[in-house]
Amino acid sequence: MARYKLTLEYDGTNFVGWQRQDNGLSIQEVLEDAAKAFCGEDVAAFAAGRTDAGVHALAMTAHIEIEKAVSADKVRDAINHHMRPHPISILSAEAADDDFHARFSCKRRAYEYRIVNRRSPLALDVGRAWRVPQALDAEAMHEAAQCLVGKHDFTTYRAATCQSDSPVKTLDEISVSRMGEDVFIRCVARSFLHHQVRSITGSLVEVGKGKWRVRDMKAALEAADRTRCGQVAPAEGLYFVRAEY
Amino acid sequence: MARYKLTLEYDGTNFVGWQRQDNGLSIQEVLEDAAKAFCGEDVAAFAAGRTDAGVHALAMTAHIEIEKAVSADKVRDAINHHMRPHPISILSAEAADDDFHARFSCKRRAYEYRIVNRRSPLALDVGRAWRVPQALDAEAMHEAAQCLVGKHDFTTYRAATCQSDSPVKTLDEISVSRMGEDVFIRCVARSFLHHQVRSITGSLVEVGKGKWRVRDMKAALEAADRTRCGQVAPAEGLYFVRAEY
Repeated sequence: MARYKLTLEYDGTNFVGWQRQDNGLSIQEVLEDAAKAFCGEDVAAFAAGRTDAGVHALAMTAHIEIEKAVSADKVRDAINHHMRPHPISILSAEAADDDFHARFSCKRRAYEYRIVNRRSPLALDVGRAWRVPQALDAEAMHEAAQCLVGKHDFTTYRAATCQSDSPVKTLDEISVSRMGEDVFIRCVARSFLHHQVRSITGSLVEVGKGKWRVRDMKAALEAADRTRCGQVAPAEGLYFVRAEY
Repeated sequence: MARYKLTLEYDGTNFVGWQRQDNGLSIQEVLEDAAKAFCGEDVAAFAAGRTDAGVHALAMTAHIEIEKAVSADKVRDAINHHMRPHPISILSAEAADDDFHARFSCKRRAYEYRIVNRRSPLALDVGRAWRVPQALDAEAMHEAAQCLVGKHDFTTYRAATCQSDSPVKTLDEISVSRMGEDVFIRCVARSFLHHQVRSITGSLVEVGKGKWRVRDMKAALEAADRTRCGQVAPAEGLYFVRAEY
């Protein structure tokens, strides 16, 4: 069998998420079906992150195996051809060792959340960002976010339905920065809990609006109580941006 | 009558263009209908540029008049409310003098064309850029473009159906620059001919691919012959970015 590491870009708007599900079309299903259309085999695809419905990827890493080795460029172009017109694109494909696993070999994952901080509705970026009309203090958000760095019980900042065995995770980095009317929140960790970035983002927006003080972010974390979380930011502003191996 | 200057962002993908037409929905129609829904009057909207079907705006200037003066913020918010869910957004509204005319008072207009120069299909930017798979030499494109600056007969670089009385226009500035896989072409002039930016862009791409030499751009211009134009770049990469008064 020949294994290929794929880097994918996708617009998650009209998908149920990465993972194949009965209730709608997934990124995984489109990719696997296109791979089968290309090579005639049943192909299983694995990804570094199982993004939710509406969540996008600038560079998701996945892998597939097919029986007969062909050039990686051929794999990229052929599968891209068969995925049309779905908004999923293989940016690059490369031959990978048999022990490379997009999910289990991944050492760090990075997500970026994009807020557009303005009063007017989005026109060109509908479905691509979360519009927050109230003025946000991005510096206060950045300061408040720093209490999350390190190993913590993230019960406050994960979905009530999260299936992870433990709420304890290590957040390696988090930063909040403003570029014009865009506010970006970047998070890096080995792995994330369900809705962790969106829960953190929603709470940081409370800080940005001045409704929460900087220290409220830490108090909510330490309470380890889901009801202390602010709103959960919508999926449409979230991007999977990098997997490190 | 109270006159308002509006700055609009829009996604032109599913519109027939700025101008009201019988064969489909226009930006003008959505704006005028929303203004009427707000104030109950028949409102006429005028814009600095009558963009074609599929062409976007980051900041189009328009003006409207309504009978009773209200705050400009109220005009912005109320019309935005009535334009939903169309991807058109008033970024700002301000009271304007009676002699301000979005089209006739405009001294300079700026367009930007966005090319994504990569082999893989677009996923997140479908309809927002022109993907060109062959490697483009942006520096050669910039060099070739400079022959267009100044007053010229632009017959080569305008649509055969262009209704302008004269093919002679003055192009104030044109630049081509690369940012990663994006190549941007920026043009500034008092006014443009029909398909002028898209015709120039398509021909510059021939230079970028190495199919045209830098001097071929000038030779085609001087021929003043529409058949000497390269391909016309698709509408989806074109953005109206600024009107100056």
